[in-house]
Amino acid sequence: MSTLPELKRPRWRRALCWGGLLWAIWPSAQALAESSSHGDPVAPLMLSLAVILLAGKLGADLAVRLGQPAVLGELVVGVLIGNLVLAGFTRLDYMKTDAMVDILARLGVVVLLFEVGLESTVAQMMKVGTSAFLVATLGVVGPFALGWGVGAILVPDASLYVHAFLGATLTATSVGLTARVMKDLERSQTNEARIVLGAAVIDDVLGLVILAVVTGVIQAADKGGTMSPLSVIIIVGKATAFLGGSLLLGMWLSPRMFKIASKMQARGVLLALGLAFCFLLAWVASLIELAPIVGAFAAGLILEDVHYKDTKLGEEVLDDLMKPIGAFLTPIFFVVMGMRTDLEALAQPAVLGLAGALTLAAIVGKQMSMLGVVTKGVDRLVVGIGMIPRGEVGLIFANIGLGLHVAGKPIVDQDTFSAVVVMVIVTTMVTPPALKWAFTRKG
Amino acid sequence: MSTLPELKRPRWRRALCWGGLLWAIWPSAQALAESSSHGDPVAPLMLSLAVILLAGKLGADLAVRLGQPAVLGELVVGVLIGNLVLAGFTRLDYMKTDAMVDILARLGVVVLLFEVGLESTVAQMMKVGTSAFLVATLGVVGPFALGWGVGAILVPDASLYVHAFLGATLTATSVGLTARVMKDLERSQTNEARIVLGAAVIDDVLGLVILAVVTGVIQAADKGGTMSPLSVIIIVGKATAFLGGSLLLGMWLSPRMFKIASKMQARGVLLALGLAFCFLLAWVASLIELAPIVGAFAAGLILEDVHYKDTKLGEEVLDDLMKPIGAFLTPIFFVVMGMRTDLEALAQPAVLGLAGALTLAAIVGKQMSMLGVVTKGVDRLVVGIGMIPRGEVGLIFANIGLGLHVAGKPIVDQDTFSAVVVMVIVTTMVTPPALKWAFTRKG
Repeated sequence: MSTLPELKRPRWRRALCWGGLLWAIWPSAQALAESSSHGDPVAPLMLSLAVILLAGKLGADLAVRLGQPAVLGELVVGVLIGNLVLAGFTRLDYMKTDAMVDILARLGVVVLLFEVGLESTVAQMMKVGTSAFLVATLGVVGPFALGWGVGAILVPDASLYVHAFLGATLTATSVGLTARVMKDLERSQTNEARIVLGAAVIDDVLGLVILAVVTGVIQAADKGGTMSPLSVIIIVGKATAFLGGSLLLGMWLSPRMFKIASKMQARGVLLALGLAFCFLLAWVASLIELAPIVGAFAAGLILEDVHYKDTKLGEEVLDDLMKPIGAFLTPIFFVVMGMRTDLEALAQPAVLGLAGALTLAAIVGKQMSMLGVVTKGVDRLVVGIGMIPRGEVGLIFANIGLGLHVAGKPIVDQDTFSAVVVMVIVTTMVTPPALKWAFTRKG
Repeated sequence: MSTLPELKRPRWRRALCWGGLLWAIWPSAQALAESSSHGDPVAPLMLSLAVILLAGKLGADLAVRLGQPAVLGELVVGVLIGNLVLAGFTRLDYMKTDAMVDILARLGVVVLLFEVGLESTVAQMMKVGTSAFLVATLGVVGPFALGWGVGAILVPDASLYVHAFLGATLTATSVGLTARVMKDLERSQTNEARIVLGAAVIDDVLGLVILAVVTGVIQAADKGGTMSPLSVIIIVGKATAFLGGSLLLGMWLSPRMFKIASKMQARGVLLALGLAFCFLLAWVASLIELAPIVGAFAAGLILEDVHYKDTKLGEEVLDDLMKPIGAFLTPIFFVVMGMRTDLEALAQPAVLGLAGALTLAAIVGKQMSMLGVVTKGVDRLVVGIGMIPRGEVGLIFANIGLGLHVAGKPIVDQDTFSAVVVMVIVTTMVTPPALKWAFTRKG
């Protein structure tokens, strides 16, 4: 490596030349594209996808060279692209909010959770079920209590509701990141991975219940009343019914579906049916206000080792067919997640104190979850670290808080919102290297 | 087969039960989904994709059983879903115009053309280059002349410009459908397929030039002037420069790009780079107002048999990696194309005469193209039939015509537009079985 730079210099100069040329012609190219009289709406997406795929792979390569999970590289390269604005480069800024890029990113994380689900079976999940349930519960109680405490100490003037809401914001684990790191490290089929993923699913249900309860209490308080216990019961019932119902129905349905499928003569039946099943459960999950990825994960669990004989192509395995689709779509999610990381939020002194305290509460609070592990031979530290990432659910909570009022004051103000954003950034960035370390520390 | 229905009846009854239940709970499920307070925007897409994948595969299976290309089944099942409105069922109607479904369909046809391009090389295309060029030229002249004639005979009161515009509407071949039928029949690597695909690409350039010229002439005539010849030259120059330039640059760039790639350590480098290259050329094509699929096809041609050694997964071939992605995204395009087929357009007596004449002109006119085949051993009828489908380009032309005026009258009125729609439907539906027949008629 050390002798190569000498030889490579002219190449780098040439690359710079090309870069400069590109920079120079870009505005006219863009103007051309916008003036297009019958431009295909897919055209801007083509550029976005090319940039995301190239940059993502470059970042992944660097991360792997540094002994880190590939996903960390995708996140970091995303942060760089997203914050080019700070260097005055705004030409790629549209990607952050582009609806098409956004939907492909979301499709990417759905596909990821389906893939991860495929790697385990319902029976394997049942074995770690008690651990997952306890981990989820303790992992919700811990951050909720600490978040409440942080609020009580740092914003003592605010009402009790604000403190409770801050706690609620810290509860839900963002499972996508941990799932991806586990895949990068080839640990998706360990009991640790199963406990974390199972707990994150239960987590999502608990988060939903907490949000509904806290929101209901605040809204009732603002009107001077109290919340009906019936609505809490309805929420819990819906969520439980879905999880149980979809698992039962899916297990009944899937062998029948693939029996019919094996009689079909068109090509690619297995992939089409598998994906359709995944999307269907993702949609059903969203119907009862759970995250679609919970449904996608459940679909993957249910489809156990589906082998399928294609009349023309021989035996196929769904896992293998999903790999290229995941490799295409999943990085979009993580690069875009990086892009949306606003580094300026980290630079507000007024926010940093609360942000630091919240982040600490988020990380330390989740470590309580490792006490819930009752399965033998499981590395508790891996579970604790795997539960750290907080993502869109936290942001969604904070966003709802911006719109909630008690006695004319919003529950979450702009500074608190920025602090939550910082918490999400830090927990996301810290998890991949920490998880890698936790897995490898024993050799 | 004939003894099975007896045994299956109870199953079908059960299926009917479930169907009825679904029908019954659908409205409340939909209401639930819409009321979702923090619903994921990917949720409605999940339902659309599940329906499209399931229905598409069902249609493909039926088509294959009937000895037809799978794509015909996808189109027909799309037509059925799209016209459920006629039976009063409007719940799936949103899919026709849903922006997310639309963009995935467009992505699907981009991926398809990239895949088809991968199956040939630049050298192989060069061998049939003369034939492709002549086929394209004659294939534009034929329908243009006949379309003009149809206009002159059936709408004699309209101006010369209207007749010329009708001719222009019939010129451009829609390459996606033929490419897919060729793939279904495993004939993508024949000289016939290469000529048709090459001609369709040149076609697209010619269509662009014709549209620009005809539109320019009409706009100038409306203002009482004439069109500057310079603008025609600029359009031709841009298009030629792209085709030549991108091929040359691509051929120079791609081996270098993959040499760098082979040193990368992250996984899935080959797929990411291949896709990025495809999307980049698709974007560049759109910059100069060519269809993005032209760029995707060029990208596929340039990447010749890319073998790539992944450090962890062994040797990979790009074609194989693209298969599942194509199998997922491509059917979306064809099912949606079917969905948008408005059967009511076929039922307007006022339109049917013009529609029939235009369709005949479109089909017969393209047969002139087979005279352009100079490559030995090529089945001319396959080429002639392969050039038949007219698609979105014809609709785009007609749409532009709706907005063009000469002496206060629009160039294309609503009835003419409907006739063009019928022409697109019929040429699309006729091609798959005709092509299948042409390929197999000699045994």
